[in-house]
Amino acid sequence: MKLNSAGDDFIARLRKCLPKESFREITASYLEEPRGQVTGRAGLVVAPGSVGDVSLIVKAAIEYRVPIIPYGGGTGLVGGQIMPDGPVPVILSLERLRKIRGVYPADNVIEVEAGAILADVQSAAASVGKLFPLSIAARGSARIGGILATNAGGVNVLRYGNARELCLGLEAVLPDGSIWNGMKRLRKDNMGYDLRNLLIGSEGTLGVITSAALKLSPIPANSATALLAVRNPACALDILSLASDQFCDGVNAFELMKSTSLEFIAEAFPEMKRPFADPPDWFVLVDVGLAKGIDPAESFEKLYLDSHARGFCYDGLVSHSEAQRREFWAIREIIPEANRRIGAICSHDISVPLGSIAEFIESSDVAMAALGTYRINCFGHLGDGNLHFNIFPPKGENRNRYLGERGVITQCIHDLVHGFGGSVGAEHGVGRLKIGDLERYADPSGLSAMRAIKTALDPAGIMNPGAVFRM
Amino acid sequence: MKLNSAGDDFIARLRKCLPKESFREITASYLEEPRGQVTGRAGLVVAPGSVGDVSLIVKAAIEYRVPIIPYGGGTGLVGGQIMPDGPVPVILSLERLRKIRGVYPADNVIEVEAGAILADVQSAAASVGKLFPLSIAARGSARIGGILATNAGGVNVLRYGNARELCLGLEAVLPDGSIWNGMKRLRKDNMGYDLRNLLIGSEGTLGVITSAALKLSPIPANSATALLAVRNPACALDILSLASDQFCDGVNAFELMKSTSLEFIAEAFPEMKRPFADPPDWFVLVDVGLAKGIDPAESFEKLYLDSHARGFCYDGLVSHSEAQRREFWAIREIIPEANRRIGAICSHDISVPLGSIAEFIESSDVAMAALGTYRINCFGHLGDGNLHFNIFPPKGENRNRYLGERGVITQCIHDLVHGFGGSVGAEHGVGRLKIGDLERYADPSGLSAMRAIKTALDPAGIMNPGAVFRM
Repeated sequence: MKLNSAGDDFIARLRKCLPKESFREITASYLEEPRGQVTGRAGLVVAPGSVGDVSLIVKAAIEYRVPIIPYGGGTGLVGGQIMPDGPVPVILSLERLRKIRGVYPADNVIEVEAGAILADVQSAAASVGKLFPLSIAARGSARIGGILATNAGGVNVLRYGNARELCLGLEAVLPDGSIWNGMKRLRKDNMGYDLRNLLIGSEGTLGVITSAALKLSPIPANSATALLAVRNPACALDILSLASDQFCDGVNAFELMKSTSLEFIAEAFPEMKRPFADPPDWFVLVDVGLAKGIDPAESFEKLYLDSHARGFCYDGLVSHSEAQRREFWAIREIIPEANRRIGAICSHDISVPLGSIAEFIESSDVAMAALGTYRINCFGHLGDGNLHFNIFPPKGENRNRYLGERGVITQCIHDLVHGFGGSVGAEHGVGRLKIGDLERYADPSGLSAMRAIKTALDPAGIMNPGAVFRM
Repeated sequence: MKLNSAGDDFIARLRKCLPKESFREITASYLEEPRGQVTGRAGLVVAPGSVGDVSLIVKAAIEYRVPIIPYGGGTGLVGGQIMPDGPVPVILSLERLRKIRGVYPADNVIEVEAGAILADVQSAAASVGKLFPLSIAARGSARIGGILATNAGGVNVLRYGNARELCLGLEAVLPDGSIWNGMKRLRKDNMGYDLRNLLIGSEGTLGVITSAALKLSPIPANSATALLAVRNPACALDILSLASDQFCDGVNAFELMKSTSLEFIAEAFPEMKRPFADPPDWFVLVDVGLAKGIDPAESFEKLYLDSHARGFCYDGLVSHSEAQRREFWAIREIIPEANRRIGAICSHDISVPLGSIAEFIESSDVAMAALGTYRINCFGHLGDGNLHFNIFPPKGENRNRYLGERGVITQCIHDLVHGFGGSVGAEHGVGRLKIGDLERYADPSGLSAMRAIKTALDPAGIMNPGAVFRM
């Protein structure tokens, strides 16, 4: 069905039914994404102040057949929030719907509007002595609606799950303009199909999430972080296995990094303190949160001795204060920015089954060496089998010379991932940049079911058209 | 669209394309459900030996417009596996697809066919030193396909989640007869809509689950169980909160029981050992699994002293051996059978937000007292806000005299649950017995989205028609 650009008649219609403060200036921030790969357009940017107003906008868009781009913090990395061609859309920003609706410590639940910023949600939870464990690099600007629409992951998935595992209830405006109130605060509810999980990860193509009930956890009594120099990724996995036995469910994060990460940090942030005197080829960051009565330093000591005795690791540092813990994390957290400054040719957000990850890293190194001379910064959430496998030009060369090789490199890596039973969109989603990958790798029967669902729920095709798949 | 009974032509067609051993005798077990509230019919019972054969059956059913009832262990409590009227269906039993396809300790994954029995899956995990934590009373007969189709819960949801949180991948035959291969062993995969969670909990109305990749966990180093006599449900919740702080994520189960449970056990199983010399009005079973280095007995001691000092509990028992632990659990686990022997007028599988559960119990006691003289056995998964709220006649009276009151009692309780923002189908689902409840309590916009999905994926309406909702 043909869609129209958001024209004067549509804008006039919205101006009639929405208060003035709903209309925002079309600034560049709405049209760019963090890696600058796609640039969007907008007929207008509208920021409704209530779920009722979201519903009005969707109903008007149906009537005028205007595409809607739901817009959160704009931090997505796959272009899901950017419409570069086709009819000019209305951008529906959730920025004004940012209230913490309620904190329910006894329920272990927090209810927030979709525009709430992740860091604010974390703080609101902490203020009642609870933990909202989801954490990503963009926590200062990412909004809950976008986090749920993309099923964001981050550093604590190993223990606490992805965004979807942390969401108990949703309120959303569906593509027919109706308001779905699914704001349950329940751990168990089996009355009908799981619309919540269908909307989570649908990247704005099945509706606009307007509020969510999120799960809170107790704050572990004792937390600590270690950096362990490991012989190779296989040894890192062996340590993960030891750590799981040792700490049971107490491992929050298990992050892999390699020498390249340290070189990039030294290059981009020469002032930053180096953790190891002798930089290891590979190292892991292990973060734990433990129950009362366990001393994390002692436990880490035991883990280190066990790992060392078995030849898995040969050097290590354990945090003995919150400041030291933050120092260790800073190394992990600065990598994306170091990468940006070095300038990647292309980036890959991939996952493979945990047991295959060492073999995958070896195979992909071999495959990349056959393609040319590149630097590979492979790092990320090893505990979840999720790596960011980013390709850089040789030292001193500019990435721009290599941009033409992107397609070949990415297809090579993605084919490998697929061969290992992995995912080429592990935590960032499909957006617009991975539509071809979904078509290439998805099970055809599953893909056709997805299309059938999209058509059934959004027959006019107005919700974020062009994201996830071509219709 | 009109459906036909499974007649001779349809049966002849299946006999042509399936091996002999696929055809089972139509025994009573396929037509009855555990509580004897609905009786079904079947034109034939077919037990395919491969996913390909499941696909053939579905395609034949589409051609002949014959309804299919996917059939697991037959342990469902809401009639989802029983079709009492309308055209006579084919029962598609998964009983021959019961292989453990593979155990991947390094991935923390087990792959099983849908007909695998829960107890066998638990054993297969244990044989490689891992835990498959889902556990329900019917673990000796419930099959994984049915467990996923109903998103079963059970006693360890507090720590490990419902069936849906334990499933990483699925293979299923969709209502068009195509085979969807979604057997991923990944913690993070955001390539497209979440079909897995859509099928989980859809009670066989959107396809036939044929295999699953399930998440395994480490076996906690130290486990123990306590029984604590509490003043009332509010005190039980206070203890849960203390236990969460004390054990962090180490609480596996937190089950509430009341004096009625003990009376029923004494009546139905007079030979059974009584845990408390002085039977409490209310008591909880707390089960923990802890990391290395923590002594559960010591930790429970601390929890008891804290709880006692604050007036939450006044008596307690801690297991000091696996045998004692099993003894404590036996009390909790025998309640459903004791209930059956006493004879409930009606049962309710409800959940409310954790913080409201004490108030809900008080309100429902008052409401029931206004309706008549009943005995209430309210017990269950307090840690999940999920109670089984079962109503019995006064002592010495037969339930049959009271069956006419079922409708009024259930509506009274369900209205209350709904008022508290709860669910009237917490862990058993909708099936056929709660269709009216879904229509009454569901958000209309959500219900219409569910119907649209059903129509889109199953336009012929052959998959378990009459379950979840009337079309």
